[in-house]
Amino acid sequence: MTVMHKDTPIESKAFQKGQQTKAAIVNAALGLATQIGLEGLSIGALAEVAGMSKSGVFAHFGSREELQLSVVREYHALFEAEVFLPILQAQRGLPRLRELFANWTKRTSAEIDSGCLYISGAAEFDDRPGPVRDALASMVKTWLAAVHRTVVQARDEGHLAADIDAEQMVFELHGLILALQYEARFLRSSQSLTRTAQGFENILLRYGAPVSIHKTSAKKRKTSPT
Amino acid sequence: MTVMHKDTPIESKAFQKGQQTKAAIVNAALGLATQIGLEGLSIGALAEVAGMSKSGVFAHFGSREELQLSVVREYHALFEAEVFLPILQAQRGLPRLRELFANWTKRTSAEIDSGCLYISGAAEFDDRPGPVRDALASMVKTWLAAVHRTVVQARDEGHLAADIDAEQMVFELHGLILALQYEARFLRSSQSLTRTAQGFENILLRYGAPVSIHKTSAKKRKTSPT
Repeated sequence: MTVMHKDTPIESKAFQKGQQTKAAIVNAALGLATQIGLEGLSIGALAEVAGMSKSGVFAHFGSREELQLSVVREYHALFEAEVFLPILQAQRGLPRLRELFANWTKRTSAEIDSGCLYISGAAEFDDRPGPVRDALASMVKTWLAAVHRTVVQARDEGHLAADIDAEQMVFELHGLILALQYEARFLRSSQSLTRTAQGFENILLRYGAPVSIHKTSAKKRKTSPT
Repeated sequence: MTVMHKDTPIESKAFQKGQQTKAAIVNAALGLATQIGLEGLSIGALAEVAGMSKSGVFAHFGSREELQLSVVREYHALFEAEVFLPILQAQRGLPRLRELFANWTKRTSAEIDSGCLYISGAAEFDDRPGPVRDALASMVKTWLAAVHRTVVQARDEGHLAADIDAEQMVFELHGLILALQYEARFLRSSQSLTRTAQGFENILLRYGAPVSIHKTSAKKRKTSPT
C-alpha cells in the first residue's frame, strides 16, 4: 500500500479512503470467517454484516475468491504481529523459543471460541485445490519455517543438544498446538492448556542441552533480532 | 439389531432386508461424508449417489440429522474394528500400546486422501451444539479413554515408568496423530509418517520404564484381553 503514496494528492486521498473501507470490510470478513468458515464466506453474507450493498462489497474484491484471499492475508498479518514479531525482542535461543511457543499457545487458546483459520481452513480446503488453499498452506509453511529457524538458533546457541533433529521437534510442537485446539475447542477439556505447557517442557527436556545449559556462554549473550 | 430377531419369520425377513438397504445407504453416506463433510451430507445428495429416490432414502432415516448420526455410528464401528479390536490380540502392556499406535497411524494415513471423520467432523461441529456434535465428541472420548486404558496397563505391567501422567501421555500421542493428519493431508509433507513414528519413540523414551523393561517379569506374561 505504501508503494502507492506516490500518486497525486487527490488520487491518493481517494485511494486511501478506498483502502480504509476495504480494510474495514476485510476485518468484518475475518470475524465472519472465524465463525462460519472461509467457505461459508460470501459477498452477500458479508454485505449484510458490514451493512453495505452487495455491489459495494463486490467493487472492492471483484470475486468471492479474492475476498477469501484477502481474509487469509489479513489473518496472516495479525498472526505475525501477535505471535511472531514480539519474539524478536526476546534473547535469541531458548528464551526466544519459549516466547514463541507461549505466544502460539496464547493465540490458539484465545481462538478456542472463534476458531483458528489455519486449522479450520486446513479442514475446509485440504481437498479443494486452488488459490485459497495455496495461500493458506503457504502461510502455514512460512510460520512453521519461522518455528524451525527459532529451534535451529536455540541449538546453535547451545541451548539445545547439538545433534537434535529440528524438523522433528517442530512437528512435535505443532502436534501439541493441534491437540490443544482439538481438545479444548471440540472436547471442551479444561486441562488442555496445562497439558500443552507440560508437553512443551517434556519436548524441551528430550531435546535439551546438557545440564550446563544455564551457564552463561559468550554465544548466549548475542541478542540480535534474527 | 440382533435384539429384533425375535420377530416372526416374515416380519424378520422384511426387517432384515430393510436393514440391509439401510446399511448400504449408510455406507454410501459415509463415503460421501468423508469427501464433502458431514455437514454437506443431504438426503438429496445421498439419493443421487445411492441411485435411489429422495423419499426412499428419507424413509430409512426420517431426517438429515438421523442420517448424520447413523454415519457417525458407522464410522465409529469401522474405527473400532480396524484400530481397537485387533490390539486385544497383542500382549497387554507396551506391545499392545505399540500395536494401538501403529493401527491408529495406519488408519489416519489411509485417510489422508479421504479425510478422518473425527478430525473433519470436529472442525465442522465444534461450534454447532446438538446431537451430531455430541455423538462425535462422545465417540472420540470413548476412543481416547481406550488409549488411556492401554497406557495405564503398560504402566501397571511395569513397561512404562510407575510415576507417569497417563492423561498427559495420551494428549501427546493425540497431538502426533493430529500433526500427521494436518501435515500430510493439508501441507502434503512426505515426511509426516516418519515424524509420527519417531515422535512415538520419543514419547515412549520419555515415559519409559527403566532399562530392565525387556526382561520378562511374572506380570508381563499376562495376556488377558482387557
